[in-house]
Amino acid sequence: MEEIKAGPLLSTIEYPSDLQKLDKLQLQQVCNELRQFIIDCVSVNGGHFGASLGVVELTVALHYVLRTPYDKLVWDVGHQAYGHKILTGRRKVFHTNRKLDGISGFPNIKESPYDAFGVGHSSTSISAALGMAIASKVKGETDRRHVAVIGDGAMTAGLPFEALNHAGVANANILVILNDNNMSIDANVGALKEYLTDITTSKTYNKLRDDFWHLLGKLPAPGFQRSMASKIEASLKGVISKSSNLFEALGFRYFGPVDGHNVVKLSEQIKDIADMPGPKILHIKTVKGKGYDLAEKDQTLWHAPGLFDKVTGQINTKTFDCPQAPKYQDVFGKTIIELAEENPKIMGITPAMPSGCSLKYMMAAMPDRALDVGIAEQHAVTVSAGLAVQGMKVFCNIYSSFMQRAYDMVIHDVAIQNLPVIFCLDRAGLVGDDGATHHGAYDIAYMRCIPNMIVSAPMNEAELRNLMYTAQLEETKNPFVIRYPRGQGVMPEWKTKMETIPVGTGRKIKDGTGVAIITLGHPGNFAVEACRQLATFDLDPAHYDLRFVKPLDAAMLHEIGQKFDKVITVEDGCIQGGMGSAVLEFFNAHGYKAEVRMLGIPDEVIEHGKPEELFHICKYDVAAIVETVKEMSVIKVLTEKV
Amino acid sequence: MEEIKAGPLLSTIEYPSDLQKLDKLQLQQVCNELRQFIIDCVSVNGGHFGASLGVVELTVALHYVLRTPYDKLVWDVGHQAYGHKILTGRRKVFHTNRKLDGISGFPNIKESPYDAFGVGHSSTSISAALGMAIASKVKGETDRRHVAVIGDGAMTAGLPFEALNHAGVANANILVILNDNNMSIDANVGALKEYLTDITTSKTYNKLRDDFWHLLGKLPAPGFQRSMASKIEASLKGVISKSSNLFEALGFRYFGPVDGHNVVKLSEQIKDIADMPGPKILHIKTVKGKGYDLAEKDQTLWHAPGLFDKVTGQINTKTFDCPQAPKYQDVFGKTIIELAEENPKIMGITPAMPSGCSLKYMMAAMPDRALDVGIAEQHAVTVSAGLAVQGMKVFCNIYSSFMQRAYDMVIHDVAIQNLPVIFCLDRAGLVGDDGATHHGAYDIAYMRCIPNMIVSAPMNEAELRNLMYTAQLEETKNPFVIRYPRGQGVMPEWKTKMETIPVGTGRKIKDGTGVAIITLGHPGNFAVEACRQLATFDLDPAHYDLRFVKPLDAAMLHEIGQKFDKVITVEDGCIQGGMGSAVLEFFNAHGYKAEVRMLGIPDEVIEHGKPEELFHICKYDVAAIVETVKEMSVIKVLTEKV
Repeated sequence: MEEIKAGPLLSTIEYPSDLQKLDKLQLQQVCNELRQFIIDCVSVNGGHFGASLGVVELTVALHYVLRTPYDKLVWDVGHQAYGHKILTGRRKVFHTNRKLDGISGFPNIKESPYDAFGVGHSSTSISAALGMAIASKVKGETDRRHVAVIGDGAMTAGLPFEALNHAGVANANILVILNDNNMSIDANVGALKEYLTDITTSKTYNKLRDDFWHLLGKLPAPGFQRSMASKIEASLKGVISKSSNLFEALGFRYFGPVDGHNVVKLSEQIKDIADMPGPKILHIKTVKGKGYDLAEKDQTLWHAPGLFDKVTGQINTKTFDCPQAPKYQDVFGKTIIELAEENPKIMGITPAMPSGCSLKYMMAAMPDRALDVGIAEQHAVTVSAGLAVQGMKVFCNIYSSFMQRAYDMVIHDVAIQNLPVIFCLDRAGLVGDDGATHHGAYDIAYMRCIPNMIVSAPMNEAELRNLMYTAQLEETKNPFVIRYPRGQGVMPEWKTKMETIPVGTGRKIKDGTGVAIITLGHPGNFAVEACRQLATFDLDPAHYDLRFVKPLDAAMLHEIGQKFDKVITVEDGCIQGGMGSAVLEFFNAHGYKAEVRMLGIPDEVIEHGKPEELFHICKYDVAAIVETVKEMSVIKVLTEKV
Repeated sequence: MEEIKAGPLLSTIEYPSDLQKLDKLQLQQVCNELRQFIIDCVSVNGGHFGASLGVVELTVALHYVLRTPYDKLVWDVGHQAYGHKILTGRRKVFHTNRKLDGISGFPNIKESPYDAFGVGHSSTSISAALGMAIASKVKGETDRRHVAVIGDGAMTAGLPFEALNHAGVANANILVILNDNNMSIDANVGALKEYLTDITTSKTYNKLRDDFWHLLGKLPAPGFQRSMASKIEASLKGVISKSSNLFEALGFRYFGPVDGHNVVKLSEQIKDIADMPGPKILHIKTVKGKGYDLAEKDQTLWHAPGLFDKVTGQINTKTFDCPQAPKYQDVFGKTIIELAEENPKIMGITPAMPSGCSLKYMMAAMPDRALDVGIAEQHAVTVSAGLAVQGMKVFCNIYSSFMQRAYDMVIHDVAIQNLPVIFCLDRAGLVGDDGATHHGAYDIAYMRCIPNMIVSAPMNEAELRNLMYTAQLEETKNPFVIRYPRGQGVMPEWKTKMETIPVGTGRKIKDGTGVAIITLGHPGNFAVEACRQLATFDLDPAHYDLRFVKPLDAAMLHEIGQKFDKVITVEDGCIQGGMGSAVLEFFNAHGYKAEVRMLGIPDEVIEHGKPEELFHICKYDVAAIVETVKEMSVIKVLTEKV
């Protein structure tokens, strides 16, 4: 892990003020060097790729024109902000990107004053920038500019619409740059995408655009004053209104579409528009992966390709001597097809994560029954509820941290009505490199407090299949959460015969003495290994896989409560209100006085790093379980001696 | 509480099939009688008023045309569905509306097959109806119609936009009826509202509308077949596209605006449109409170006026001999102004609840610093985060159950960045008549699991003021939740001098022996009364007001843990994962073995009823506390004897 060498011009740029000293004819070279630097870094360090390549020119143009950090630049999602980071004081540490104690893969207000708003989830930028713009207005800082850069994929979420609706009447200075590349991680979907394509190809708009820039071209280059802008604006207003577009309907001035890869023109356009008062939207067309041929051609694969040979484009895939366990997501993606072939009521829903959750296999095999609804978690849940009302068995697959977006829909549309929607929460637990915004840390706590819910987690692939099988049975009448982590399971031979698991039953993995370990989900495997290691110290804890945190397995917990006065709970979720807390509630209700050590995610914001590093830091890995069993055993010995 | 007499025609209608036997010339009389029936009922029983009056004609037209429950009719929000309930088998029990064990004030799938989807929160109808429409498509039930009725206020939320974006490409049969009355509970706000007004008054649209209905008028009345509709549609398509509107942009066929109070025409229009394939939107103009003069004139007051004299329009206001305690919401609404007068950084944000949360006072006094952002909880939180980044101290006031809508924004935009946004959660706990969808039951559990959060609840008005004062101090650096219930506090002399409360400190209300009662928030007053009653039985429990469920008052809990082996926790939130659970976690971590009885909202869906009735059913009222102390004391006596 060492610093990557930058090109000659980029090497002179530490901060945007250095960039601003350049002549605009040098900007394209900066772009070329910046693009190469990103390729050099990501190919050997990994990370997001296509999105940052697509906005190289936009990034350079913005930092050439704006006076950040005084001006507020808010990147939506943030995985496209590599160029921004490199130009704002972080080029020399960029090789630490997404690594433990290194810089974050997303903008982060704790990392740099140039990161105006922390991000990771999509679609927040317009609201955040509008808040800043309103604050500037209240404080009388009228010269401050507020820019949100948002992709067409992120625009399918409800939040940007809420923000547009407010911005259209808020009388605050905000520029929204719509970075239209037709993509989320997968291809963007929905009516808005088609609309954006329509206006991009429409003659009226092209003419309007040409007229506008033609007019601007006639003005003296730097002295483009606000009063003049207003006049031009007014004269254009009539033309625009006649061919009224969606953004104009919401009170924005709409400009575009323009080429997002012409850095000189783009910087001029941004300069012209940014100082106009009120809400503006500049629609730019870009190509995700721009400048790296393979990435342009397969944009989903190259969203975050892992390590690769930058010359040949060969993506490093590890080879193994023995069969490897599959990813949990693929077990989901393939098992749902098996189930759907037998049960015609089964449908699959994903909000813009067909590749990430592997629903893509079903979408290819059964296109009418597996739907990508766009970045729209709220709608994903409520449309699932509507399907369930009509008797369908819907597997609604949403990453744990994204499910936070649809919390009210889970309560209000599904749980209160007790509809049997199946929620598969992928990426539950600590996800690793993506860091704080993406960890699925809270779902056990926020789901188990809701009435009617079934909340489960499989310890391995076979268990995931059995839970999915159980959830889709006609006799399963409740909403059913199945949470599982990012990454691989433990069973190379994963395609087991599926069988029903009685709801609310756990499994005893092993009998034991002294201490009982209760695990939920994949960390159960950590406990298995811990028990193996502890055997060498003549320690023999019992191990139970709780499997359901709701409803609890009362019989199993009574057994534990009666036999053990030392209990360890292990979960890949927050400790506060989580599985261990549920065990405490049970023990308290039934008068068991066991000492319970609760291992899991502590009550703090966990940053990025490799999953194993984070498990270790959070103290719920194999070593932590071993240590805790030892500690409790020692205490027991000491206590007995007294 | 007795049955209300219906008019002669309405008396003959038990179900829509009875309505459908009438000649269309009789429909206006049905409307008149239905309107009168609603006035008669609500004036003596209370409930929502203006919304249902506004859709009388729409309701009759829909049930005249549709074949519910086979056709799916989804009401958004649902407080306008009184007419729907009365026409679908519930006229004779309508006087039990919103009463314990009576019918719900909202559509409820457990109550009637005619209630296609349960509701209470706004903006879910298009997603739900679309889910049903997709299910019909998959099942091959091509003759089923799916209708969502949504207000222009509800359209400002993000969810309907997510649904429109999907519906525009989903190729399913759905009719959205946009009930445009310019209102939420308060006046609707935002760019969309202005847009709808624009198209309503635009000559192009009026002309288009006239042309369309003129064309329809020429067709043989009943035999308006689908093929013909398609042809007309096609011929109109060109015209509509030219003046491209927002809904057309998203792939809907747009019709309107039309008069929502002409029942005959409206039923013809719905009939014509409902069978057209694909997504359609019919924009109707209605007047909230229609037909009751006072309600038309002050639509916010008459949204849910309480009991009133239907002849004079005099709203019953109780008179009292002695000063009464204020509502918590008014203490908030007036205190924020006091604080904002001193601290220029303070701002107030509400998502469409300026009257409900009493921010209206500040909006009137300081219009630049108190904003209604529309029904847009997600945006309300993220715009608050943007304001906080710029140094503002924002009081973002959202009902507890509506905050579920913005859960990800609380975590992702506020807590991870540790921004000092102040969340005032009004309507925390059981709200009473509005029932299951509106109870603020889960916020303690879903907030306390988030890192960086401060979570508090005031026991009375002075405490609310002190918490608000503390939250806005410069030295308070964390996000700060203050939850308080619907209704009155306990202090007629509420305007106390404000003082700082050290974060994470509780109060000892009284010393005692045997049992310690720990309360959070307003239910502390139940414990005070319980202690008073218990004194007559020679029982003397201690009482502690925890005040902060996060961070916990360690010193106070150590005192309790050391002095007591019987503890009762009392909270107006769900027991699972709630305050009592936090106390268990603390006791477990520090080796205290007290028996803890946890009083609060049990793990089930709690329906509607008077608050006191519900507190009693849920067993956390005065009587329940008295009983629990007695039980624990008896057990103690018995145990000691053994």
